[in-house]
Amino acid sequence: MVVSAAAFIVVDWGTTNRRAYAIGHDGGVIETVRDANGVLSVARDAYAGEVAAMRARLGDVPVLCAGMVGSTRGWAEVPYVPCPAGIDDLVAKTLWVEPGRTAIVPGVSAGGARSDVMRGEEVQLLGAVAAGLAPPDALLCQPGTHCKWARMEGGRIADFRTTMTGEVFALLRHHSLLGDFLKGDVVDGPAFRDGVAMAGENTLLSDLFGERAAVLTGRRDAADVASRVSGLLIGSDVREQALRPGEPVHILADPALGQLYASAVAAMAAQPIVIDSHAAFLAGITAIWDKIHDR
Amino acid sequence: MVVSAAAFIVVDWGTTNRRAYAIGHDGGVIETVRDANGVLSVARDAYAGEVAAMRARLGDVPVLCAGMVGSTRGWAEVPYVPCPAGIDDLVAKTLWVEPGRTAIVPGVSAGGARSDVMRGEEVQLLGAVAAGLAPPDALLCQPGTHCKWARMEGGRIADFRTTMTGEVFALLRHHSLLGDFLKGDVVDGPAFRDGVAMAGENTLLSDLFGERAAVLTGRRDAADVASRVSGLLIGSDVREQALRPGEPVHILADPALGQLYASAVAAMAAQPIVIDSHAAFLAGITAIWDKIHDR
Repeated sequence: MVVSAAAFIVVDWGTTNRRAYAIGHDGGVIETVRDANGVLSVARDAYAGEVAAMRARLGDVPVLCAGMVGSTRGWAEVPYVPCPAGIDDLVAKTLWVEPGRTAIVPGVSAGGARSDVMRGEEVQLLGAVAAGLAPPDALLCQPGTHCKWARMEGGRIADFRTTMTGEVFALLRHHSLLGDFLKGDVVDGPAFRDGVAMAGENTLLSDLFGERAAVLTGRRDAADVASRVSGLLIGSDVREQALRPGEPVHILADPALGQLYASAVAAMAAQPIVIDSHAAFLAGITAIWDKIHDR
Repeated sequence: MVVSAAAFIVVDWGTTNRRAYAIGHDGGVIETVRDANGVLSVARDAYAGEVAAMRARLGDVPVLCAGMVGSTRGWAEVPYVPCPAGIDDLVAKTLWVEPGRTAIVPGVSAGGARSDVMRGEEVQLLGAVAAGLAPPDALLCQPGTHCKWARMEGGRIADFRTTMTGEVFALLRHHSLLGDFLKGDVVDGPAFRDGVAMAGENTLLSDLFGERAAVLTGRRDAADVASRVSGLLIGSDVREQALRPGEPVHILADPALGQLYASAVAAMAAQPIVIDSHAAFLAGITAIWDKIHDR
């Protein structure tokens, strides 16, 4: 029997990874467990057992899940909440998979002329505003495998779009002809900024091959290719957002990736503001939990 | 002992595939052998044996090779010939790996502000003009894994650029989150043309994710995704070339891929002209052979 001061457990349950936090009554994190048991590696009938194991470790308290665990590949499908979506909207559609014990927060969908979806990122976006890390009307950027660009209005997610930037870079690194040149570290230096500048030409498909050719013909150092291709992709991503000069962009990311996006945003003459994504997530999930509790 | 009417053997020796043709004294193809023994599957010391095996099958005659067999991964590295490059330039730099018996045609490099390289495609490009399939001053397009766009001037390759279009589509199909939706056939229909039109927005990275989201939210039929993503990529590729209205584009490809590029070129208000890539290759390699013979 584990004796814990946890008030509840939060699980950020993604496609390939999972993070569980025991949250204390003061809102602080007591313990964090991170593993690779994302939804791709959990059978549908194994979720209840997985959560029971978490409780055995972190405390016998309610569990609040967010992310792909609420998708068709997860424990139970929780329908998307359409934009505009605020914390109240998510709370209203939270699904109790174990009544009073375990709940899953819904994802959010964007409509209009195009379609978009998110599962998990909404907690961080809404939390950034809830924690005062970003104003209620703001453009937020969450870089990653699938980078989210969200317009917040009145503290709700008004609209968003997802770019496949991180996934495309990973595909090129692991599976493409350019792969041998992309194993190096990406750093925010001259090569990265060259790549960002190249993005202005809107010739992504030929620029990618040109990187390989420049190495083969001895015109460029192979060690720079990873940074330049990253700059080209992140630069293309930022460019697609058509930022206004001076427009503030609140970036929620780990420090390394946050710095790369900040550099690209600054290169487009907009104003990058890097904020603490971990604090945003905790603020968001705590705000959701408090509202669920109040109901 | 094989008795053959072949005058010489031509090998189009690529990264993953290889095609060998026995060419008769009249320039016609006597026999074709196609297999998967590209340079990635042949050890450097095994090339002489591979060519001896071809001679045993197709005739004990000279062998002329083109393609990645002349790269650092191939039999022997043959330096690139810089643009502008014509048949005479290739002949002058052809490398005899077995004197009087086996030669490798060099690839071509493009310089200027950007870098580009080709190995193998130059034969088809120069052959298209040699055979009268394209005029001496023309824009030629060779779709494929790495699509080549070549400006011909006076029958020589004046400049070119390579787009990673086919490889990016294959990466998405085989390795990405979109992969499940990309297994279907690509056809030149409304979905493909929608994709071509979407390319005009210059928002490739977000449009790719949007295709997945549109299926997840039930707004689009999963069966159309492969055609729309192909249209988006090919449309982006064609768009990067900044074609002038009415500009003729000579397309060298198999009929299916040629039709897709022709459709995208027409959508950009340029004039597609599909020509026979096989005839172009044979005309090119025969012209090179004749010049070698004359020396």
